[in-house]
Amino acid sequence: MGPHPAVAAIRLAVRRVLHDILNDQPASRALAGRHPGLTAERPPSPLVLVACSGGADSMALASALAFEAPKLGIRAGGITVDHGLQAGSDLRADEVVLRLCELGLAPVESVAVTVGREGGPEAAARDARYAALDAAAERHGATAVLLGHTRDDQAETVLLGLARGSGIRSLSGMAAVSGAAGRYRRPFLQLDRQTARKACMAQSLPVWDDPHNADPAYTRSRLRHEGLPALEKALGKGVVEALARTAQLSRDDADALDSWASQAEASVRDATGLLECAKLYALPPAVRRRILRRAAIEAGAPAGALFARHIEEVDRLITGWRGQGAINLPGKVVAQRQGGRLVIRQG
Amino acid sequence: MGPHPAVAAIRLAVRRVLHDILNDQPASRALAGRHPGLTAERPPSPLVLVACSGGADSMALASALAFEAPKLGIRAGGITVDHGLQAGSDLRADEVVLRLCELGLAPVESVAVTVGREGGPEAAARDARYAALDAAAERHGATAVLLGHTRDDQAETVLLGLARGSGIRSLSGMAAVSGAAGRYRRPFLQLDRQTARKACMAQSLPVWDDPHNADPAYTRSRLRHEGLPALEKALGKGVVEALARTAQLSRDDADALDSWASQAEASVRDATGLLECAKLYALPPAVRRRILRRAAIEAGAPAGALFARHIEEVDRLITGWRGQGAINLPGKVVAQRQGGRLVIRQG
Repeated sequence: MGPHPAVAAIRLAVRRVLHDILNDQPASRALAGRHPGLTAERPPSPLVLVACSGGADSMALASALAFEAPKLGIRAGGITVDHGLQAGSDLRADEVVLRLCELGLAPVESVAVTVGREGGPEAAARDARYAALDAAAERHGATAVLLGHTRDDQAETVLLGLARGSGIRSLSGMAAVSGAAGRYRRPFLQLDRQTARKACMAQSLPVWDDPHNADPAYTRSRLRHEGLPALEKALGKGVVEALARTAQLSRDDADALDSWASQAEASVRDATGLLECAKLYALPPAVRRRILRRAAIEAGAPAGALFARHIEEVDRLITGWRGQGAINLPGKVVAQRQGGRLVIRQG
Repeated sequence: MGPHPAVAAIRLAVRRVLHDILNDQPASRALAGRHPGLTAERPPSPLVLVACSGGADSMALASALAFEAPKLGIRAGGITVDHGLQAGSDLRADEVVLRLCELGLAPVESVAVTVGREGGPEAAARDARYAALDAAAERHGATAVLLGHTRDDQAETVLLGLARGSGIRSLSGMAAVSGAAGRYRRPFLQLDRQTARKACMAQSLPVWDDPHNADPAYTRSRLRHEGLPALEKALGKGVVEALARTAQLSRDDADALDSWASQAEASVRDATGLLECAKLYALPPAVRRRILRRAAIEAGAPAGALFARHIEEVDRLITGWRGQGAINLPGKVVAQRQGGRLVIRQG
C-alpha cells in the first residue's frame, strides 16, 4: 500500500523541486568532471534547508524533504525563526527544532530575530525572517531554502496586490523561485493548504496553529477568514485556483513587458542620455510608463512609494503636454519637460 | 450658486466625452470644408443616444447628456431596452421613455428584445441589449451611444474576470470606448455609483432599482452585495478604485503584448506558413502563448472555450517536448508537433 494521497502529493512536489535544484547547479559538477584531479574527494552533497514555523504547511514540507532528499543524495536541514512577537515563542521554536530533528533533518537551528516596525507589522516580520534565512543559508552553505507557501497563500497575495492597484507586477504573487541565485523555492505553490494539513494528519505530525493567522488585526488574516470565503461564495469554488493562475500569467506578462521596456529605453535616449519626448510618445503606453517608472527609480524615487498615479502624471508631460510645470515625485525627485526632453532628477 | 457637486461631476464627465466624440469625427467636417458646394446646407448636428434602464446610473447619465449636448450643438436622444424578463417590464419601459422625454431628449425609443439562453442569463441579456442598441444607433444615425457603467461596475467586472483566471485581458474590464467605430462610450467609468445616485436625488429624478441587481441568483449581484463589501472590509476602502485602476493598467499591458505578438507572429512562420518550434521557443512565454492562442482561434477554436490550461498544454509541445501526441482543443481543433513545426488545424 502506497502513502496517503496527500503525502504522495507533497512528496512529488518536493521531489520535482529537488530535481530542479540539482539541475540548476551544473557548474561545480561540470568542473568536477573536467578537472578530476582537483576533486579527487567528491564534492560535498548539496544542502537544502526548510524554513519551518511548525505550522501545517511547513511541517508537511519538512517531512517531505526529509523523505525525498536522501534518495537524491541531498542533505536536508531545517531553520525555524523565532520572531519574538508572542510570549513563549522561544519555547515554541525549541519544540520545532525538536520535531525537525525527529524527522531526521540535520543541521537544525532556531534563529531569534528582532522585528522592526518598517512597512507595518507583517512586512517588518517578513523582512526580519528573510534576513535570518539568508544568513542561515550562508552560514550552513545551503544551496536552497524551501518555503511552505501554498496555492492559498498565493491567492491571498494576489488579492493583496490587487488592493494596491499598481498593475500586473503586483498581481504576480510569489515566484516559485526567488532570491539571490534562486535560493528560495516554493514547492507547494500549486498545492492547496488542505493537502498540506491532511499530509500532516496522515503522518501523525503535530502542527501548531499560529494565533496571528486568525487575528483580524492582520490584513492577510482578514482576507483568509472573511474576504476570500465571501469571494468564493459569490464567484464559486475555483477562485483560489483562478487567482493562482492569474499570478503566473501576470508574472510572465510583466517579465515580457519589462524586457521590452529595457530594450526600448536605449532607443529613446539622446546622445546625452536624456529621454526624448517624441520617441517616448511613439511607444505603447504600457512600455512608455515602465520606462518612466524605471527612470524615476534610477533618479532616486523609492520604488515602494512610487504609485501608478505618479507615473500617470509624468506620462501626461508626454501625452498631454500643455506647458505644465515640474512634477514632484517621492524621494524629492522632480520630473519636468525641457525642450522636447524629459528630465527626471533629484532636486 | 452652482449645481450640487454630484451634478457638476456627472456633467463634467459627460462634457468630456462629448468633446471626445466631436474630436473623433473630423472626416465629415473636413469633407464639408473641402467641398463647400456639396454641403451648402450645414451637415446635420450629430446625434448621441443614452442607453437608459431607468436606474440611477443611466438616469443621471441621461440628465447630464440632456444638459450638456445642446451647448455643443449635439442632438441628444435615448433608448431603453425592454428585456421582457419581468412582469410589467413593458410598462416600466414606457415610464422610462416618458422620463427621458421630460428631460428634453429626442428621439426617445423603447425597444423590446427576446433574451436567449446562450452563455447564461446575464450574458444572454447583454447580447440582446447590445444588438438592440446597435440596431437603434443605425436606425437613428447616431454617432455614439452612452452607457452608464460606473467605477463600481468596473470593479465588479475585474473580479468576474479574475475568477476566470485567464490572464490580464480578462482583468481589463470595460473600455471607455468600445464597439464598431468607437460607438459605445462610458463617461462614468471613473465615477462612483454613489455620485450618480446623489446626482439623481439632487435633481429630484425618480430612479428605479432593478430587483435583478439584488437577486443572489446572479453572480454580479452576489459580488456587489457580499463579495466586494467583504473584500473592502478585509483590504480597506480603496479596493474599488484599485480594481478600476488595475483594469486600465491591464488593458494597456494586454494591448502592448497583443501588438508584440502580432509583430512576432510573422517572424516565426516558415515559407509555408507553419509555426517553427525553435523560433517560438526563443520568444518570451507571454508572447509565445499569445501567438499559440491566436493560431488556435484562427484554426477554428472558439475563443470563449479556449482556456489558459489549453494553451499551456500546447506550449509544452514547444518548451517540454518529449514526443507527446496531438492535443485536442475546443472546436475540434488539433495541435501537434511535426518535424520541428507546430501544426494547428481543425481535424
